[in-house]
Amino acid sequence: MTGFSTVSFLSDLGAQSEHVGVVKAVIRETAPHVTVIDLAHEIAPFDVRAGSLALARAVPYLTEGVVIACVDPGAGTSRRLVAIEVADGAGVFLGPDNGLLAPGVALVGGAGRAVVLDREEHHLIAPGSTFAARDVLAPIAAALCNGADLETLGTPIDAAELLPGVVPIPREENGGLSCEVIWVDRFGNCQLNVSADDVNAAFGDATRLRVDVHGDVRNFAIVNAFDDLGQGAAGLVIDSSGLLCIAVGRSSAARELAIGEGEQVFLAPGGESAPVATPVGIRPSR
Amino acid sequence: MTGFSTVSFLSDLGAQSEHVGVVKAVIRETAPHVTVIDLAHEIAPFDVRAGSLALARAVPYLTEGVVIACVDPGAGTSRRLVAIEVADGAGVFLGPDNGLLAPGVALVGGAGRAVVLDREEHHLIAPGSTFAARDVLAPIAAALCNGADLETLGTPIDAAELLPGVVPIPREENGGLSCEVIWVDRFGNCQLNVSADDVNAAFGDATRLRVDVHGDVRNFAIVNAFDDLGQGAAGLVIDSSGLLCIAVGRSSAARELAIGEGEQVFLAPGGESAPVATPVGIRPSR
Amino acid sequence: MTGFSTVSFLSDLGAQSEHVGVVKAVIRETAPHVTVIDLAHEIAPFDVRAGSLALARAVPYLTEGVVIACVDPGAGTSRRLVAIEVADGAGVFLGPDNGLLAPGVALVGGAGRAVVLDREEHHLIAPGSTFAARDVLAPIAAALCNGADLETLGTPIDAAELLPGVVPIPREENGGLSCEVIWVDRFGNCQLNVSADDVNAAFGDATRLRVDVHGDVRNFAIVNAFDDLGQGAAGLVIDSSGLLCIAVGRSSAARELAIGEGEQVFLAPGGESAPVATPVGIRPSR
Repeated sequence: MTGFSTVSFLSDLGAQSEHVGVVKAVIRETAPHVTVIDLAHEIAPFDVRAGSLALARAVPYLTEGVVIACVDPGAGTSRRLVAIEVADGAGVFLGPDNGLLAPGVALVGGAGRAVVLDREEHHLIAPGSTFAARDVLAPIAAALCNGADLETLGTPIDAAELLPGVVPIPREENGGLSCEVIWVDRFGNCQLNVSADDVNAAFGDATRLRVDVHGDVRNFAIVNAFDDLGQGAAGLVIDSSGLLCIAVGRSSAARELAIGEGEQVFLAPGGESAPVATPVGIRPSR
Repeated sequence: MTGFSTVSFLSDLGAQSEHVGVVKAVIRETAPHVTVIDLAHEIAPFDVRAGSLALARAVPYLTEGVVIACVDPGAGTSRRLVAIEVADGAGVFLGPDNGLLAPGVALVGGAGRAVVLDREEHHLIAPGSTFAARDVLAPIAAALCNGADLETLGTPIDAAELLPGVVPIPREENGGLSCEVIWVDRFGNCQLNVSADDVNAAFGDATRLRVDVHGDVRNFAIVNAFDDLGQGAAGLVIDSSGLLCIAVGRSSAARELAIGEGEQVFLAPGGESAPVATPVGIRPSR
Repeated sequence: MTGFSTVSFLSDLGAQSEHVGVVKAVIRETAPHVTVIDLAHEIAPFDVRAGSLALARAVPYLTEGVVIACVDPGAGTSRRLVAIEVADGAGVFLGPDNGLLAPGVALVGGAGRAVVLDREEHHLIAPGSTFAARDVLAPIAAALCNGADLETLGTPIDAAELLPGVVPIPREENGGLSCEVIWVDRFGNCQLNVSADDVNAAFGDATRLRVDVHGDVRNFAIVNAFDDLGQGAAGLVIDSSGLLCIAVGRSSAARELAIGEGEQVFLAPGGESAPVATPVGIRPSR
């Protein structure tokens, strides 16, 4: 193992402040050969679950290297910061032990060696204790990129002790699937925790489903592209993560159908005779 | 041809999600020597015209390499993705064939060789078909940066078949110029599709113009710097693209004058005796 | 002196437009070995003070190289653009001479050699004069990174002539500290211009303070981590810059307490017997 040249970085630090740049500056100071790839920094403040889902969506595409993930409401308290080796050492995940890293780590085969980042000689001396990404995760990432062995940077722990993630699982009940909107993207598409495979398992090769959102029941076609929905028409799209999305053609399903993250949704077999797409209201969509 | 080391990247993917970072990760996986320069990712969803205008503003400053532009409402449908060589091979533009690339390509001398990106062996295998930047444009960009010849990556087409862009042209009529607000920037400056040269051609060396916005007629000075307008005073500024902008000193013209993108504007010769700048209302500007 | 490989970049250009990317493209054109680190581009338009404070927070962590800072309401007027050498040549700050650079320069030991960037042969030829970061600061940064000596790029000036910054200083009065909210961060934490050392000097080893914000007087504990405040409870936290922050546990102090940037705050010795944290209202915090 001779180090890494890429750090992938996800946080709730926001792009408004200098915080993300400062983390990069700290890495560059001791590991100038490293390229940092920003994954997302606009995770809602304190929203560990949203951060863990964004990380999980990204992980299958990340290149070898270090991953810093920092949605860390407990910064400065006794909560632990950890480093977790994955994929036989091809990657190391750094972050708080609050469930944030768990779904991403699971997607690349689960945790290998893990340490608690408790050796202060490897941290920055800081005027306050609230910025772990700058003071702990960045210098540790730089050390790993420079070839330091994981176990020189902290105290080994059993990976089984790490806090698990909380990703909701859909439930089969009453002949349908009880599921949830886990993400609303920039376009207003509402991603469900239901994969194309889940649909096949529950409903065979259905091309339509009945969709119940807060008592509003609709009969939606399942299509492969957002523009296969007519403009202003709602339906279900298999999105780029292979998950089912409630979408509206060239508009925002979240706005048109008043759906938010965490919304409970019930899917049931749909009639096949309905029109291909259900128009939404009479407002012109932009 | 020995490849490229820079990819410039414009999209409507937004900075909120991990999408932009995932595209970079895919490029880095096979072309780790490449630096990606983000041009803009907050183009309004589905707004191909706004994307094409932002790209055109940037193009004169881009360095040799690949340009990925992705505002792609038709993702996953039968719309074509294309690669267009420009400037004798100094650059290759990648994106949907929906007019997005056209104005930028024209600015660097027009299209040379072009291919449709229809060879799936060069694409990522993906769980859904809606994320062309990740699954098609990123691996193609990496291949080009690694020195692949354009024609090995898709099927050659005649560049004359490519969809043209839709950039509005000002019209001379009734002794004036009928034009349009094509962009409102972060500061609220309202850029018109009228260059300093257009002003000279239509109005000679005028230093003032009559400006009619939705029936509101004002007499504006033309100045070279935003701060040459008094604080809270409206006028016309030759902006950094050499285009005429309606602006308000240290404030937002869009807000103060209630102007948006797409607003029709009529310019006519202005009186020379009016005060240098017209105060806007009585509200204190921030 | 053989040049630099890092440019740190702060501005009010915003992430919505292509402007930041264009500045990077200009640097890359002539100095392709350089990595640009974005510090912040969402500084409020025209807010020189906010920009200077963000720069000052970042400066202690920056690596050797060039710093471009551009919050420049006077772009295109006769205001001066300057380059200021710091730390015996380990860094050069570029920006308008409007006070923006001053606090950051002071933090790294003050100005060494300085020049006015008045040699147009080193600037881009541009269609308008309003984009100094692209047309002046970027090519100058690239030249410095390529090893050009500062004094070949402009006319030397006495650093004592540079405009000072305007960072507010807390005042001791009536047995307390009169201070100000200098920044509200993404989480709604309200940073005061009062360091942990200032607190010690004024109040000894106090663990509580009386805090008067627009007549609202509260008794707050001083803690070391945001999560040491109970959920929904307000208090004072020593933040990552070593400054006192008014914060609310897992919520936004700015919103819950209706505090904005520039708010005047009066700190006085606090009683020791009050509860550890004061609950804020009865609304559930998100």
